[in-house]
Amino acid sequence: MTRSEIDTLIEMMAKLPGLGPRSARRAVLHLIRKRALLLTPLADAMQQVAVTARECLNCGNVGTSDICDICASEKRATGEICVVEDVSDLWAMERAGVFRGRYHVLGGTLSALEGVGPEDLSIPRLIDRVASESITEVILALNATVDGQTTAHYIADQLEGRVRLTSLAQGVPVGGELDYLDEGTITAALNARKQL
Amino acid sequence: MTRSEIDTLIEMMAKLPGLGPRSARRAVLHLIRKRALLLTPLADAMQQVAVTARECLNCGNVGTSDICDICASEKRATGEICVVEDVSDLWAMERAGVFRGRYHVLGGTLSALEGVGPEDLSIPRLIDRVASESITEVILALNATVDGQTTAHYIADQLEGRVRLTSLAQGVPVGGELDYLDEGTITAALNARKQL
Repeated sequence: MTRSEIDTLIEMMAKLPGLGPRSARRAVLHLIRKRALLLTPLADAMQQVAVTARECLNCGNVGTSDICDICASEKRATGEICVVEDVSDLWAMERAGVFRGRYHVLGGTLSALEGVGPEDLSIPRLIDRVASESITEVILALNATVDGQTTAHYIADQLEGRVRLTSLAQGVPVGGELDYLDEGTITAALNARKQL
Repeated sequence: MTRSEIDTLIEMMAKLPGLGPRSARRAVLHLIRKRALLLTPLADAMQQVAVTARECLNCGNVGTSDICDICASEKRATGEICVVEDVSDLWAMERAGVFRGRYHVLGGTLSALEGVGPEDLSIPRLIDRVASESITEVILALNATVDGQTTAHYIADQLEGRVRLTSLAQGVPVGGELDYLDEGTITAALNARKQL
C-alpha cells in the first residue's frame, strides 16, 4: 500500500494528547464514515480556530479576541485575580462557575530542573497587573504538586505586603472516600478542620 | 463567556471515539498551541481526506481510489479472500503483513437483535466475487464474538462446496500468559494442540 492522505491524517491524529496510533485509526475511520456530518465540519472548524484563536494579551486565556471575554467584562473587575498554571485550569475554574474575578495564566510552573525561571512564565506581567488593575486579592490556584507549590511560594514572596494573598483550601474532595485518600490529603483536611 | 469557534471545535472533537469532553479540551488546547505545526496541517489533511477518501467498490476497504491498492495489485490475485468485519480489521491483518491475497469487508455482523440481515452486509457481493474472481479459498477472519461466529457460520453455509473455507486458529496469544486467559481460550488451545 502506498502512503495515502489517510495515513498522513492518522499519523497527525496520533500526535494529539490522549490518542495513540490505534485510537487515531479508529477516529479516522469514524470520520471517513461520517464525512458530511463530521469530517468536513471538523476540518472547517479547525481552519476557523487556526485563524481566530489567540491568547488574551492581558491574562493569557485562549479565546478569539486580543482581550478575552473575562478580561473585557466590567462585571469581573472585582479586584480579585486567580492565578492558574494553564488555560485548562482556568477553564476548570470557570466550569465551577463560582469565581467572579479575573484570571492570570502563568503558562507553566517554575522548574530548576527544566530551567524555567520567572521570566519564562508571565510572573512579571502578574506583578504589573496587581499594580495597574487595583487588585486587592490574589488567589493562588496552582496545582498541589511540588512545582506548583514552589511557584506559589515564589509569587507570594514577590507580592508580599502589596495585596491579600490566598490559596485554594486543601481537604477531602466532595464525594471522596477517606479510604481512597492519600495521607497528605487526610493530614491537610484534619489540620484545617472546621467547627460544626 | 460567549460560545466561540473554540467551543464548537471542542464539542466536535468530543464526538470522536476514544475522546471525551476533557480529552477534547486538552487536544484543542494542544492544537492551538501548535497552530502552525499541527492545527493548520491537520485541518488541511482532513479536508484532503474528506475529498479523496472512498470505499473500494470491490472489497469495501477505505482508500483514495475507486479500486483500492490491494484489489488493484496483480500480485495479490492469489485466489484467496480474507473476510473481515470492518476496515480496521483489514488494516490489522495488513500490519501483520502475512496474508498475500485480497480482502472482503462485510461492514458489520449479522444481528437478529439489531435487524442486520445478509443484504445489509456485503455478503451477496462476496458470493459474486467467489464466482467471478476464481477464488479457491475463503478465510473467515471474523471476530471471536457470538455475532462474528454466527456470521461466519452463515457465510460458510452459503459458500459450502464451492470453495475451501477456513477460519483463523484459536489459541494462546503470542506472549500471553495462561493465568490471564479465559477458560474458552484455554479449552480451544488445548483441543487444537500440536505435536512437537
